[in-house]
Formats: sequence, structure tokens, C-alpha cells
Amino acid sequence: MERIIGLINAPFTPFYENGEVNYEPIEAYARLLVKNGLKGVFINGSSGEGYMLTDEERMKLAERWMEVAPDGFKVIVHVGSCCVKSSRKLAEHAQKIGAWGIGAMAPPFPKIGRIEELVKYCEEIAAGAPKLPFYYYHIPAFNGAFLSMLAFLKAVENRIPNFAGIKYTFESLYEYNQCRLYKDGKFDMLHGQDETILPCLAMGGAQGGIGGTTNYNGINLVGIIDAWKAGELEKARELQNFSQEVINVICHFRGNIVGGKRIMKLIGLDLGGNRTPFQNMTDDEEKQMKAELEEIRFFERCNKF
Amino acid sequence: MERIIGLINAPFTPFYENGEVNYEPIEAYARLLVKNGLKGVFINGSSGEGYMLTDEERMKLAERWMEVAPDGFKVIVHVGSCCVKSSRKLAEHAQKIGAWGIGAMAPPFPKIGRIEELVKYCEEIAAGAPKLPFYYYHIPAFNGAFLSMLAFLKAVENRIPNFAGIKYTFESLYEYNQCRLYKDGKFDMLHGQDETILPCLAMGGAQGGIGGTTNYNGINLVGIIDAWKAGELEKARELQNFSQEVINVICHFRGNIVGGKRIMKLIGLDLGGNRTPFQNMTDDEEKQMKAELEEIRFFERCNKF
Amino acid sequence: MERIIGLINAPFTPFYENGEVNYEPIEAYARLLVKNGLKGVFINGSSGEGYMLTDEERMKLAERWMEVAPDGFKVIVHVGSCCVKSSRKLAEHAQKIGAWGIGAMAPPFPKIGRIEELVKYCEEIAAGAPKLPFYYYHIPAFNGAFLSMLAFLKAVENRIPNFAGIKYTFESLYEYNQCRLYKDGKFDMLHGQDETILPCLAMGGAQGGIGGTTNYNGINLVGIIDAWKAGELEKARELQNFSQEVINVICHFRGNIVGGKRIMKLIGLDLGGNRTPFQNMTDDEEKQMKAELEEIRFFERCNKF
Amino acid sequence: MERIIGLINAPFTPFYENGEVNYEPIEAYARLLVKNGLKGVFINGSSGEGYMLTDEERMKLAERWMEVAPDGFKVIVHVGSCCVKSSRKLAEHAQKIGAWGIGAMAPPFPKIGRIEELVKYCEEIAAGAPKLPFYYYHIPAFNGAFLSMLAFLKAVENRIPNFAGIKYTFESLYEYNQCRLYKDGKFDMLHGQDETILPCLAMGGAQGGIGGTTNYNGINLVGIIDAWKAGELEKARELQNFSQEVINVICHFRGNIVGGKRIMKLIGLDLGGNRTPFQNMTDDEEKQMKAELEEIRFFERCNKF
Repeated sequence: MERIIGLINAPFTPFYENGEVNYEPIEAYARLLVKNGLKGVFINGSSGEGYMLTDEERMKLAERWMEVAPDGFKVIVHVGSCCVKSSRKLAEHAQKIGAWGIGAMAPPFPKIGRIEELVKYCEEIAAGAPKLPFYYYHIPAFNGAFLSMLAFLKAVENRIPNFAGIKYTFESLYEYNQCRLYKDGKFDMLHGQDETILPCLAMGGAQGGIGGTTNYNGINLVGIIDAWKAGELEKARELQNFSQEVINVICHFRGNIVGGKRIMKLIGLDLGGNRTPFQNMTDDEEKQMKAELEEIRFFERCNKF
Repeated sequence: MERIIGLINAPFTPFYENGEVNYEPIEAYARLLVKNGLKGVFINGSSGEGYMLTDEERMKLAERWMEVAPDGFKVIVHVGSCCVKSSRKLAEHAQKIGAWGIGAMAPPFPKIGRIEELVKYCEEIAAGAPKLPFYYYHIPAFNGAFLSMLAFLKAVENRIPNFAGIKYTFESLYEYNQCRLYKDGKFDMLHGQDETILPCLAMGGAQGGIGGTTNYNGINLVGIIDAWKAGELEKARELQNFSQEVINVICHFRGNIVGGKRIMKLIGLDLGGNRTPFQNMTDDEEKQMKAELEEIRFFERCNKF
Repeated sequence: MERIIGLINAPFTPFYENGEVNYEPIEAYARLLVKNGLKGVFINGSSGEGYMLTDEERMKLAERWMEVAPDGFKVIVHVGSCCVKSSRKLAEHAQKIGAWGIGAMAPPFPKIGRIEELVKYCEEIAAGAPKLPFYYYHIPAFNGAFLSMLAFLKAVENRIPNFAGIKYTFESLYEYNQCRLYKDGKFDMLHGQDETILPCLAMGGAQGGIGGTTNYNGINLVGIIDAWKAGELEKARELQNFSQEVINVICHFRGNIVGGKRIMKLIGLDLGGNRTPFQNMTDDEEKQMKAELEEIRFFERCNKF
Repeated sequence: MERIIGLINAPFTPFYENGEVNYEPIEAYARLLVKNGLKGVFINGSSGEGYMLTDEERMKLAERWMEVAPDGFKVIVHVGSCCVKSSRKLAEHAQKIGAWGIGAMAPPFPKIGRIEELVKYCEEIAAGAPKLPFYYYHIPAFNGAFLSMLAFLKAVENRIPNFAGIKYTFESLYEYNQCRLYKDGKFDMLHGQDETILPCLAMGGAQGGIGGTTNYNGINLVGIIDAWKAGELEKARELQNFSQEVINVICHFRGNIVGGKRIMKLIGLDLGGNRTPFQNMTDDEEKQMKAELEEIRFFERCNKF
């Protein structure tokens, strides 16, 4: 199975002021990502408010991303849902439109408490797109599925033929590394926390990753990997430290889904607000965030069109 | 606003073996509930695997329940969803088909951490069915929304004109009582844990309630209220103790959604299995459960056709 | 084994301004409790900041309470500690000085995750006072020991000859009742939440209890039981509702250990502050609390000397 | 203030079979640690079952370690306790006997929920040993004190003159790095998870650390740092991967405090069992653990006398 090398971006979903999905900015969005070194997109995930979208919106977004994605730019469709029947349908659709791959996080309801539940859930979905690699998206802080990923790999490996690996969005680099080493690297372990790319590289990981702050800071996050590979440790550290400072700022504004999305407007691509229950940033908050970003000279270094 | 008096049942959703919704048993189901003293149904909630259904399935189920519900039998439609746009649509549909009321739990994703998020979420949904009473369904063990319900009542009361009250499925009878007493009982506090109807009655609560084990044990749960009102404390205690024993059994079989649903088959109304990621009971487990129920002489006392 | 009938009070530990234990007020304290209908004390527990005291202080406090306790007034000594060797020593001391009983909560460190760990912990302690009844103090919100109490009773019953029962400070009246019914009431289930005495009585429980707000509101909490036994349901409800209002107030001031202790000063028995890391109330907070208590006419109805 | 460079070991506390502390092995223990490259000890912490010891035992252990520690071998005394008065006394004692430094974790009871509580707690303790550096020991998985360490540093820096830094035993290398960078490295950030020394080094951290598996695997953990500094990345990775395999084994045997302590016996230094409520390993478990360690050829590479 092909491995993902480099960074994939988890895009935000653009909305009109009336709350409907706005498919218009996606073409420019894709160009921006390509220009700044991203290798693909992981759409309709947490950054993309996938769980807040209808199945129809999710499919239309997938179609639109497929239309605008240049050759070799991977479109991976997150199809996770509380309703496995919907997930299955979204998986079938992703394969039909020629997406590169699919992924799904554990459902937040019912909260998954046993490995077997998770394996069965992934099995039913992955079978809907048998020709595409399936990635499990591990983000327990969002869905409460605090399960051992090593145990999951062992349980899943003979059950799901197109199982490719894990998007690992959790703090334990120890567990990440154990999964990475399992059967000499049988599975593709995508790093999923932009704040720790450099330490993960040092362990031998983070050959591929999926980022959320890559939307606006991808150029520097890609730079960490390039600097590391070039043996420029100090440069890699500076880029990682800078990227953490960017994350510090969004943490003051309800995180990436709310604050990060608004940064897109500040760098020139207005994607609108968020769906309820997310609380949109006020104009005052936007001003304050802009000031904080200026203080770290973000706009001189961020993704550029 | 009309108060709910007596017990409403949260029905299971029947499935065919192939996993599709089976609308056929609903007519008999409604008759069973009426016969055993239930005053209505709260459909598509947690017992009904509402989150595991597509919007279309949820609407068809609502329509079917409306068709079979006799006069005065309340059909309340749970419309909660991670996608507030879907919830809004389901609310509009519920009003259109003449449902008695609607309800919604907090979305499990994103996890609600602030009262304001919850108020806004409920506001957008309730506005879709302005002529129907809206009940917030408080079940934090399922969605992580551990918020103060008294603070929520204060925040919501001038924001949502058709806000009726709370289906309170949590252990704190202290908080329940404080909500019940708020502004001399301004809001309808529906008791939501079948294991504690009697203690709640003693405090002055549980005038209305929504049960999950009422599906098969409603006659005894209704009996608790009748006995209490008749001053027959010892009888009420015996019925409450028995009802706890029934709950003890389902706790051995993954709870009401899995184990409780299978009891329906044992009393004569086969509703099929559960959707993934729920793990269906095996035949061995069914046998074992049946034996445990016989041991407490459940089948002599349960809901009867 | 003798059952506890009525309410036992969990006293606060008096401190001088310099932070040392002040044994002087204990005599008046005991008189106050007797006068307002309490049947004994559960000392050095959570209200008594037992975990914040040295072993020597705990033993001196136990001795002082024994000296001032009138005949028939039960002194139960909480001997729980992270150091089981200390707990054992405190248990031996309690028996030596003639205390009525002992108790211990699960240690907060290491966090107890298995029934067997808890049984062994209790076993070693209880063996230090073989002639006294041993009560397990279940308060998982404080120590994280969220274990099934029914499973614990089954595990402990043939292991600890002087095991008497549980001080149950948790919201699940369902679990409380199941423990109460176990082997026809073999164990003494002491109710441990002053906010729900009435509902617990209705189920048949709360024959005995240990309170924290009984320190200043014991007369009304005892009144709930008396009214219930006299068949005066409305009176019992009024007293329970009032007692919840008192608890509402202390919840605004960091709970019973901080806010409740300061109420003692307001009713005439200054017990000083709390040990670090508790944050003592400021004078402003005290004024505000007093005003809130006046608003519910607390001082007209509270414990009196 | 002097920085800690290299790895400090958190020793286990030796017990006799009767459960009393055995001070005899400590001399050989110190020699073992020196020989395998450790720079000091952090005694009476979590590995040392400090919370399970009496104050007297803790002081005698501190005295014994001071007696046997060679010149330049740092003895840091963990003095944390639920009783701040005990902690203060232990801090004073540590300074009196000439310890190099002191440390304290947040008390597990009452659970710390506010920065100010933690600052005050540390302040009272640190003031007992004003001439020694004070380290806060951040291990929230053990005591529930999930507070922002950056916010803590800001709150503490002008309050505690001898505050030196943090022993950081948590997974967030992002937060670790932010603390490390605060005010150009004003505080000493000791790395506290042996499974991630290499990734932490890559970020610029882990100049000093405190380990728990260094007791028996120190030579390899020290080797990670040496290899990294020598530019031997592959060697560092191999050593880190091996060290993770060792940790995998102890995770099968209730972790370092139970399983790790028993490894000491297997490498030639029998330290006895654990205090209740820890469940000691059975002989069968010991055999199984030994087999697992042999499978990874641990005994060929571990700490040697």
C-alpha cells in the first residue's frame, strides 16, 4: 500500500452567512495548499465540521474537492458518523468519485468502550470502499475512545483488508512509536499534532502527517520536516517553536475549529463562521487575535497565495 | 403549557435482520404500551438508537408512530443530532405531522462545555417547531454535557418561548428538586431514571417521567406511582425494588439498548438487533438473560399483550 | 451488630489562627450537637480535614472527643490515610480509647482501581480494632474510587469479621438500595448526603446517616426523619427543601469544608480556618454568605446552643 | 541556581517481609546507581511509595541516602503529603541534613482545582527549606491536578524565591516545551517520562530528567542522551526503542511501582514488596515477567553492579 509522505491538510468547511455550505472558495483553497507544500486534504473531519454537516453536504464537498484537486494531490474523505449506515454510504461515494482514501474516527455516541466495537464499526465502513486505503482517526479527546491503539492494530489487521493505518491525534509519542514499530512498520502512522512534529521525527516517525494548523501555517510545518531531513536541527527547532506560538494564539480563541478558521479570513480566504453549537468569534475577538498574531510576526511567515 | 402526567415510554427501533428499519411491529408496539398504562412515546432517543438512524428513517418512524398512536397518546420526537441543521429539519417535520412535542439531548460532538453553547443549540432547534413544547434531554453520561441544569433553566427561560422542561436522566435528585422548585415549578421536570421513581415521588417530583425499561416493565413502574398516590407505601417499595431487580439483569447484558431490546422478543415482540457499534446479544446470552429473568419471576409480572 | 439509628455528625476540626489544632471548643461543640438531636460524631473525616492532620493530632482529637462525649453519644473515628501503617495505628488507638467504631475511605493515592485492593486495605485497618465495627466510607468524588459497592460487599463479607457497613456518600440511590437489600439488610447502610434524606427514607433507607451540614442544620435534618416517621409528608418536604437551600448557599463558598465551617462562627462557635490547600473565606465572602443565609431565614431555624 | 544535567533516579523503598522499611540495601543501591551513570536520587516520591510511609520513615530514609551518597551525587527529597504541616516538617528536615533539593507533587486530596491553591501549597512547603531548590512534581495522572503548567510558572515565579522548576511527568511535549522556553529558560524543566527522552532532546529539552525505570535500565536511558549528544541518532533510537520495550513489560505487571520494583530483585538487589493497597506480584507473575524480559534480552543490557 502506498504510504503518505509529507503533510496532508484538514481543511475547514466554508459557510455563507446564512449558514449554508459555500463551495465557491474551495478552488482557491486547494491552490493555496498546493503552493505551500501540502500533499493533500483530509476533508469533513473535525476541522471541517464533518459531524455538523448533512450527508448531502459531505458528498458535495467531496465532489468539489475532487474537481479542484490537481494530479497527485490526495483527497482523503472522513466518513465517520454516529450512523454507520451513513458512513457506509459516504465511503461508497468516496470510492465512486475517485477519492484517494477514506478515514473515520470512533463515534462519540455511543461512546466506544471495547476494541471489538471499534473493529466492527471500522469493518462495516471500510467494506464500503474496498479499493481505498482506510485510516482510523484516533482523537480520543473528542470522542472519548481512549483505547490502546496497539491492541486495536492487532485486532484489526486480519479483519479489514484495506486498513492502512492511523491518524494519531493524541499526546502519547510512546504509544505512537510502539504502533509505528509494530511488525516492522506494517501500518502507516500519520502524525496528527502539529505541535510535536520535530520530536516525532527524532523517534523516526512523522514521515506522514495530517495537520489542522497547516491551513495557514503549513509552510512552516512542512519546513520542520525539510530542515530535519537536511540536518538543520536549529532551523527545525525554530520552526517548531514558532508553530507552537501560533497554536498558543488559537488556544485563546476556542481552538482551531473556531479561531483557526478565522485566521483564514485574516490571510485572505474568508470561510465564514461555524455551525452551532460552536460559538463564532466576535469582531472584538478577531481584532485581538490579529494583534496577537502580529506580535509573533505571523503574517510575515504564514501561508501565502 | 400542558404538563406530562404519568409515564412516557422511550421505544426501541425495530430492525430487520439485514439492518434496515422494520416499521411493521410499531402498531402492535403502541397497543402494548397503551394497555400497560403508558401515556405516550419519546421516539428516536437513546433507547431508539436515534443517533444511529438516518434523517429519513427518523422521519418515517415519526410518521408511523403518529399513524398508530391512539387519541391522547403523546408522540414526542427526539430530534437531537450532531448536525443542528438536521435537528432543525426533524423539528419542522415533527410539527408538520402533528407530534405532541419534541426533545433534544446535547450533541456528543462537539462536547458541550458552556451553557451558552447549549442554549443556542436548543434555540435553533426549538424554533423549528414553535407550536410544540421543547424538552431538553439531560443525559450527561452519554454525551459529556455535565452542566448545571439550574443554570441552564435560568439561561434558557427568556430565550426559547416553547421551552417546556427537562427530561432529567441523571442521579442527582438534589439538582432535580432544585430545578423542580425553580419559580414555583415553572418548568416540567420529567423524571428519567426508572430505578428511582419512588424516592423522587417522595420529594414531590416524578409527576411525569420518561422510561426506558417501561417497554417491558411499564406496568410495574406505573404501579409505583399509583401505589404512592393511594398511600400504599409498602406496595410502592415492593414494585420499585422489583423494578431495580429487572434493571440489575439488563446491566449484565450491556444495558437497556442491547439487553432491554432483547427482552421485547422474550415477551413476544421481536424487534431485531442493534446497529453497529452496539454488539448484539448472542443466543447464549439470550438464554442466560432469560434464566435470570425467570429467577425473579419477571415473566409473570411484566407488560402483557 | 448494633445498628446506627438517627444522624451522626461529621465535625469540623477547630484551628487556632496560627494553624495549630485548637482542642478547646470541642466540649461546647459536643453539647451543641447533642442538644440538636445528633446521635454521635464521625471525626477526622473529610469535613474534619482528617487527611490534613498529623497522626498525633488525629489521636489527640479522638481522645478529646471521647472525654467530652456524653453516655450513648457515639464517637466513630475515621482512620483512613494514604499510609496504611498510620491507619492501622489510628485504628488500634481508637479501640484503646474506647471509641464506638471506626471508618476509612479509600486512599486517594494510589487511586484504587480494583475491589481486591480495597478489600485488602480495609482488612489491614479493620484488624487493628477487631472489637469495633468498621465502616467503609464511600465518597468516590473525593478519591476516585468509583467501584461497585455491591461487588465490594460481596467481596468483603467473609474477609473482615468486624465489617459493619458503608457510609454511602454518592448520588446513586439505586446502588444504595441494592446494598441495603443485600442479604435482607445484612449490612448497615448509612446515608451520607444531607440533600436526599427524604427520598432515601421513602425507599426504606436512611435509618441511620452521617451528615456534614448537620453541624449547623442538624435540627432540621433530624426533623425530616421525625416528620417522615410521624407521617407528616408535607413537613418533611419543607424541611428537606429548606436543607437543600442551605446547601445551595455553601456551594457558593467552596462547599462544606470551607463555607460550612465558617457558618459555625456565624452561629456562635468559631472554629477558625482551614489548612492549606483549602482557601479560607475572606471577610467579604463571609459577609456575603451571611446575607444569603439571612435571605433564607437560616438563623431563625438553625442549630441553637 | 544550579541546573540538573543528566538523569536522576527515583528509587524504590526497600521493605522487609514484615512490611517494615529495610534501610540495609540502600548503600549497595546508591553504588549501583552511580556505576550506571545516574546523577542523584529523588527519594520518597511515587516510585518510593512516599505517600505510603510515615513521616519518621521518610526522614530516616532521607538520612540514610545522605549517608551513602558520594560527593556530588544529588539527594532530592520528595516531601509532598496531604498534610502540609508534615510536608513543611519534612522540608525543614531535608535542609537540616544537607539534602541537595526538595520537591512535592500536588496533594491527591483535596484534589487541586485552582492554580492559587497549588501556589499556596508549594509556598508553605518551600519556605521550610529556603536554601534548597524546590521542584514541583507534575504528575496529574496520579493526583488529578490537571492544571496548566505555564500558568503555574507565571503564578509562582514571584511568590517562591527558591522555586527551581518542574519535574514534568505528563505526555504533552508541547506544554513541556512552552514551559522550557518561558523567559528564555528561566526554570529547570526536568523530563519525567523515560519513554520519550529522545523526542524531548530533539526539541531542546531533557537536559535533565528524573526517571523511574532508571533503577534497572539507567545505563540505556543515559545512553540515549550520550548518543544524541554525540550525533549518533540511530544509536539513540535503538536505545529509546529498547527502553520502551522494557516499559512494555512492566506495564503487564501493574507498572513500575510493583513490576519495576520486582525487576530489582531479578538483577540482584531484592527490595521486598509493596505496601497495601498495592498488590504484590505473585511468584508466577515474577516468572512470567522474567521470561518476558529475557525475550527482549534485557538482562544482557540492564544496570550492572
